Parts: sequence; C-alpha cells; structure tokens
Amino acid sequence: MRAAIFGGPGAVEVGDRPDPVIQAPTDAIVRVVLACVCGSDLWYFRGQSPHALGSIGHEFIGVVEQVGAAVDTVAPGDLVVAPFIYSDMTCPHCLNGSTISCVQGGNFGNGVIDGGQGEAVRVPLAGSTLVPVPGSGHADARLRSLLALSDVMATGHHAAVSAGVRTGDTVAVVGDGAVGLCAVLAGHRLGAERIIALSRHPDRQQLAHAFGATDIVADRGEQANQAVLSLTDGVGVDAALECVGSEQSIATAFGVARPGSTVGIVGVPHGDVPFAKTFFRNVGWRGGPAPARIYIPELLDDVLSGAIDPGRVFDYETGLDDVAAAYAAMDERRAIKSLLKVGSL
Amino acid sequence: MRAAIFGGPGAVEVGDRPDPVIQAPTDAIVRVVLACVCGSDLWYFRGQSPHALGSIGHEFIGVVEQVGAAVDTVAPGDLVVAPFIYSDMTCPHCLNGSTISCVQGGNFGNGVIDGGQGEAVRVPLAGSTLVPVPGSGHADARLRSLLALSDVMATGHHAAVSAGVRTGDTVAVVGDGAVGLCAVLAGHRLGAERIIALSRHPDRQQLAHAFGATDIVADRGEQANQAVLSLTDGVGVDAALECVGSEQSIATAFGVARPGSTVGIVGVPHGDVPFAKTFFRNVGWRGGPAPARIYIPELLDDVLSGAIDPGRVFDYETGLDDVAAAYAAMDERRAIKSLLKVGSL
Repeated sequence: MRAAIFGGPGAVEVGDRPDPVIQAPTDAIVRVVLACVCGSDLWYFRGQSPHALGSIGHEFIGVVEQVGAAVDTVAPGDLVVAPFIYSDMTCPHCLNGSTISCVQGGNFGNGVIDGGQGEAVRVPLAGSTLVPVPGSGHADARLRSLLALSDVMATGHHAAVSAGVRTGDTVAVVGDGAVGLCAVLAGHRLGAERIIALSRHPDRQQLAHAFGATDIVADRGEQANQAVLSLTDGVGVDAALECVGSEQSIATAFGVARPGSTVGIVGVPHGDVPFAKTFFRNVGWRGGPAPARIYIPELLDDVLSGAIDPGRVFDYETGLDDVAAAYAAMDERRAIKSLLKVGSL
Repeated sequence: MRAAIFGGPGAVEVGDRPDPVIQAPTDAIVRVVLACVCGSDLWYFRGQSPHALGSIGHEFIGVVEQVGAAVDTVAPGDLVVAPFIYSDMTCPHCLNGSTISCVQGGNFGNGVIDGGQGEAVRVPLAGSTLVPVPGSGHADARLRSLLALSDVMATGHHAAVSAGVRTGDTVAVVGDGAVGLCAVLAGHRLGAERIIALSRHPDRQQLAHAFGATDIVADRGEQANQAVLSLTDGVGVDAALECVGSEQSIATAFGVARPGSTVGIVGVPHGDVPFAKTFFRNVGWRGGPAPARIYIPELLDDVLSGAIDPGRVFDYETGLDDVAAAYAAMDERRAIKSLLKVGSL
C-alpha cells in the first residue's frame, strides 16, 4: 500500500509499506478515508522530537475491511473513528478513564504500527478502540468533523474538562492552533458564558468567533496577561486552557487564571511554572494527552446532530501523494491544519 | 495584654502587647481561649522563612468580648472559631471560594495584626470571618477539635478536596505531621475506602489508624513509592495528598498518583516537579493555603456531632507563659502539635 513515510527531519514522503494483515484475533484492518497532520507531527518534521523512521500519523477515520475473530463491536463496512491511541478498555487505567495509559495500549504511526497517513491501518485491540459511526452517506463536512474527533477536538475538550469548565464560566484559551480553536468550541459546548481567545491571526480569530469566542486578545506575553485581567476586572478567568506548551504560553495561562482555578494543559509542556509561584493563589493544573476514546462517543453525538463542527479547522487539503505539501503548509504556518483525502467511503 | 512575641529565629517568648481595641466598625475583639503552634510557625522559628518581629500565631478559638457597629453575625459572649485568614466574603475571590485571596483579607500574627498566641485579638472583618459555635459548656476534647478547624483540619480537608477524593477511593497521605494526620481524617470523612498513610513514627501511625488509615508505609523516597505501588497492584492511588512540601515528599506524591489523578498539595512547596514528568500520565495538582472560612461550617457540624475529633493531634499542652516550650517541643519533634491554654470559656 501507499503511505506516508517519515525519513527524518524535513522528510515525509509517500512511499510503499506492506499491506497490513490481521496478526491477532483482536486486530482489524481499516481502509483510511480521511487522515490529517497533527501539530505534534511537526515536532518530528522539524527535528524537535525524535521519531522512528517509517510509518507516521495518528489521526484517521476509515471503513473496516476485515476483523479478527475476537472483534465483535465493529464489522466490515462500518465507518469508524480511531482515537489516536489504541486501548483495551479493561485495564485499571482505562477503567479510570485514562486510556492514554492503557497497559496494553500504544501509538499509531510510530514507525512499526501503521500510521493514519496511509491507505490502510492494522488496528490492535480494535473492538475496544474503534468507535463506529451510525448512519451512512455522510457529507464531506461531517466527515471532516468526525476526523477531528480522532485527536484535535478530543484534545480541545480535554483542556476544557481538565480545567473544569462549567456553565457560566469565563474561559481564556491560550493558543489559536487547531487544538486551541477546538478548545474554544469545547468551552462553548460546556456552557462557558465568556470565552477569551488569544489569537493574533485574523483568519483564526474569525474561526474562534465562529466557535464561540466572545473576546479576542491579540497581545502576547505580559501584555496578554494584562489584557485578560483587564477584561475580567482584575479577577482572572475561571478556567485557562493552555493549548501551546511554550514557556510563554504556560506563563500566560497561569498568569490569567484566577485564584482557586485550574489550568487545563494539553500543549506538551516545553516550559514550566514553579509550584511556589501559583501555590499561594491556589492555582493548579491538570491535563496531558487526551483520553480520546472516552470522549469520542459524546462528541460524536454532537457532530452527528450538527451541534459542533470541529472539521472547520481543516483549511488545507490534498491527497496522500502530496503529503509533503500538507506538512509544508502547516510548517510554514500557511495552514491551521492539513487534511489528507485518502480514500472514498 | 500578654502575648507571644517573635523576636527572631529561635526566639518566641511571652511579653506585653497593647490591649486590642476596636478600630473599625467591622472589627471584633476576641478573648482567646485556646491557641496553638502551626508547622508554618516553625519555619520562622527556624529562620527558614522571614517573619516580622512582634505578634505571631494564627490559630485560635475564643469568646467575643466586643464588636464594632457593623458586626451583626457574632455578639459578645459567643464562642467563635477564627479561620487563619480574615476575609470579607463579598469580593470575587471569596465568592469563588478562595477566601485566601480576599482583596480585603489578611493574616493574623504578622507582627502588626494580633496573633492567635495571645490573650486577645482584634479581628478585622469579624462578621464575615468568625464562625460562631452553637451550644455551650463544650468539653475540653471538643474545644480542641474546634481549635483544629482554625487551620490544621481545614488544611487536611483542603488536601483531600483539592485531590478530588471520592467515595471508594484509594488515597495516599504523604506526611504524618498534624496536617497529614488531619488529611487522613478528611479522606476518611469523604468516603475513601483505603487510606495509605506514610509514617515512620509509631505514635503517629497509631493516630493515623485511629483517623481511618487502613495501611501504613514506613519507607521513604523511592522505597515508599514502590511500597505504595505494590499495595495498589502497580496502579497507584486515586488521590495523593502532599502534606509536607519537601522535594522528596512531592516526588513521592507524584510518584504514587495513578494516571489521570490529581495530587492535592497543602505543604508549602520547597521542591518542584517538572510538568513534562507527569504530563504524559495526566497527573495534575491542585492546592495551596486552605480556604478555611469556607470549610469550617461543615467541619464544625461534624465536630459537634462527634463524627470527627481532629483535636487528637494536640499531644503537648501548656500555658501562654510557656510558649517557648510549646515551640521547642515541636521543633525537637517531641510533639505533633502544641496547644496553648490561654483563657477559660
């Protein structure tokens, strides 16, 4: 089959990989319909984090082609959403809702296990991992929103859940990448009354507004903190969602969080905040990689009802053959998020 | 009046301070019945944190002697519990439950405002700060438990609340000081099924058991982590309560917290944990100084009903004249917590 191959920093090209086959009775083979490029894929592309040579990509939806003997929750022909981690849903961590720490779980597109950026994927623990999508003949826009559940929307939701967003809250979202924009949508969905999006790009500001942002702050650093505090009468926000992970964005999130609140962190942290700096204000933090498998069912309902349309974060699309261009568009910040049209329904 | 005077590291002696008088219509004068020495007072005593010369102590119960014209929730003759911070209960932070960040609030025993370790205290914002105790003729043991609500029990409760302890949880409490022991009691009160107390002192282990601990781990450092993980089948605990604040105790709390859980931190942090070390396990933290004023009413009900008896943490008692001995007993670890009998009901 054809699939994206990571050949080292700056080098992601389509190439040949072995056709996946069932290796365990809990496996399924999924023919990929849509895939996309994650912000985290860019770290590997930029050489900022190591990645094994070979398969890459962990966000995809597709059609089940074949299932192992032990798989009975999905069947050939089913349209499915794959969370970005596979998990057994029976280990203590999964039962606690932390599928990301599943004792049998693992990553897609890690050089060995197939990546989502390819024509097909062998999905381990398929019965407990894949979420079937009811209905048929879904329109393109809906398929894009289903794809977003695989990671980016689940991650934005995780930021909001980790920060404990509740009805009526004032929320600040730090970061206007695809995750930040989905965090705006997630905060809105959870009932936030006021959502302050920190964004300096007009197109992203526009999408933030469409997703529910009530205020935009285009400043950065200390000026951003002051702007958010000024918008909240000096109090700070009930929930700060940190969707970047840089030292500056982390400092901003903690700087605008009101006393007693929790910062929801989903940007992989490349900075830090000393405990002592926030302890006396009772500002804590929660977050990490999203347990997408746990969140997908409820978010799926909202996609199917039309209540949310996270697929709008995809503003660049191409085919698998042009995967290099999809990476380049994001790397050069020409795209919020790149979609790969891989197969048909 | 007679009161403890902080004269510098190693020097807390009883001396003369001006009799407190009403200065604002929101003030009350409280005649102290019981006071005590806090673990945090020891930092000043040991010269580890700065403290203004003069009044000291922030935990006390007493009888209202006089109130300003604007105070109508307590009256002369009332037995009251004072939270360790005074607060207005009307500012945004108080309304959010973060009395510790009250815009008009402040500390007792800071060199200027009277300390709890004295015969009387002028309490600012008295109507919104002091919690009256119903009934009369309370026995000694009950009075001690009421005193514990002023800080130490509220702080243990805050650790449990911050970590989100729920019915059926497995909890680890790091620290067997008075706060740690109260955290055991708080976890038990909130329905934890299993409570692992980390303690190496037989007398404290015994009190931890009495407060609801089901398991004791006497190890420290990496051995403590392994012992707790072994007790939890390698999973870790649902809630780790950090009640010390040292680098080692913080590392232990994060080391034994299961994926997806939140560490409740109430020990003033003198160490740190890099985000990146816990992010991928989704282990967060919450905590800080306890909003005692918020917690006291519900804890008070349980003290009066006999459901909890946090006053058992006081294992050394003396009078105000011997305040130096009360500090020395804690400093030399001969006492868990020192009580000062200052006045009568």
